[in-house]
Amino acid sequence: MTDLARLSLNQETIRQWSLPELVEGCVAADVPGVGLWRAPVQKYGVEAAARLVRDAGLKVTSLCRGGFLTDIEPAARAKALDSNREAVDEAAALGTDTLVLVCGGLPAGSRDLHGARERIADALAELVPYAATAEVRLAIEPLHPMYAADRCVVSTLSQALDLAERFPSEHVGVVIDTYHLWWDDTLAEGLTRAGAQNRIAAFQLADWVTPLPAGVLLGRGQIGDGSVDFRWFRDRVAEAGWTGPVEVEIFNERQWERDGGAVLAETVERYRAHFQ
Amino acid sequence: MTDLARLSLNQETIRQWSLPELVEGCVAADVPGVGLWRAPVQKYGVEAAARLVRDAGLKVTSLCRGGFLTDIEPAARAKALDSNREAVDEAAALGTDTLVLVCGGLPAGSRDLHGARERIADALAELVPYAATAEVRLAIEPLHPMYAADRCVVSTLSQALDLAERFPSEHVGVVIDTYHLWWDDTLAEGLTRAGAQNRIAAFQLADWVTPLPAGVLLGRGQIGDGSVDFRWFRDRVAEAGWTGPVEVEIFNERQWERDGGAVLAETVERYRAHFQ
Repeated sequence: MTDLARLSLNQETIRQWSLPELVEGCVAADVPGVGLWRAPVQKYGVEAAARLVRDAGLKVTSLCRGGFLTDIEPAARAKALDSNREAVDEAAALGTDTLVLVCGGLPAGSRDLHGARERIADALAELVPYAATAEVRLAIEPLHPMYAADRCVVSTLSQALDLAERFPSEHVGVVIDTYHLWWDDTLAEGLTRAGAQNRIAAFQLADWVTPLPAGVLLGRGQIGDGSVDFRWFRDRVAEAGWTGPVEVEIFNERQWERDGGAVLAETVERYRAHFQ
Repeated sequence: MTDLARLSLNQETIRQWSLPELVEGCVAADVPGVGLWRAPVQKYGVEAAARLVRDAGLKVTSLCRGGFLTDIEPAARAKALDSNREAVDEAAALGTDTLVLVCGGLPAGSRDLHGARERIADALAELVPYAATAEVRLAIEPLHPMYAADRCVVSTLSQALDLAERFPSEHVGVVIDTYHLWWDDTLAEGLTRAGAQNRIAAFQLADWVTPLPAGVLLGRGQIGDGSVDFRWFRDRVAEAGWTGPVEVEIFNERQWERDGGAVLAETVERYRAHFQ
């Protein structure tokens, strides 16, 4: 076992790579895990992607993403549930037990955060039996509050746990992503609570760098470039009992313009310097 | 008393206006209050500005802003404290008892949020006696968590109250700004807590609209254009005992390109439609 035994590279970190390039790059760099996204996997073919990763000896640590469960209109809601069931099937086919959920923002014209959060709970109640049968755990990802309107009304770990708690921990967990949660002074107690309930389903790393770009989606920073105290996260998440993968997930347009191998080498170096 | 008796126009909402234009515009529109900013007031002259506003029969509801109290380096820290004492003097000269504090982000290279928050408390302890003598209340403004790194490590009402509570409520209060706080599901209890302690020092309105612009500073939305439930805020803030001014503070480059009178007319219309 190398010192990279827990490291996983989320596919979007090096979006410029095809799936075969990703697999080849991770194998060459001794990175044993990959986090995959539905769109590129579907494009390559789910079964083919599963075989490619498996044959290379890599582990799929999570599939991103299900969710978007806040629609009010029945047809949109049914479509979202169907899509989530497909995502569960894809996760199972890829050999991962973790489907990350970005739960959805406010529907157009709505200002009802509480109602949107309750619709997520209702949708989870519909999805949990299906996911349980497939042995896939639904992982609620709290997103930074700056995404509350348009991506995810679940903005804090505490909110994510409030939702997850309504279901058995083996079926519904939470994602700890440093980018989304670093600012929160109640995070330590949230991690303790998550640990006590065995709710941590995934642990993702990205740094917080400013200024944020327009749209605030593609400005996640390389580990060590910003304000996140990664060792603090490492220690608190370890105390909460998480011994699973540590997935680096950085969406950054400047990183996507670079050579993929250079980005991966830098990521491994930063992981060693700032996390280990 | 008109139905606009509590309305105040923060100067930066119509940045394209000079101070005399602001005063003239508010008088013409029956808006009785103005929130001022240090830089344009200094440029016009503090005493002249005070006279201009007073002679027009307007009330200065707040001065923005003191703060930036998180420096570690002693010279920078002393300079920040001096600047805040000047801001207290300016507030007193303008006839407002409310100095809004944007408390400051992480110093360059620091990842210690807790330490930065403690330095704010230390700085407040130094400033409170000075502000008390001038009968100016220091109003801690929790800013949206997306500003935690570079502008304000105080990201929630709960954090602001934790800081304020160390001091008498007549000397240190908090700012309730819809833009910064709307996403927080613990806000109702925070407002109850703020009310019970008599901590509310200012109440500001702006809407949350997406996509956010680069830098995320100048994308505040006109009332009614976004996700904020203003009537919810109105009712909870009233229940918390606040009967003071309701200040509209919108930083938006597109509004600044428009005719100032048109922006004010729209603001009054939106205030009536979405808040009253």
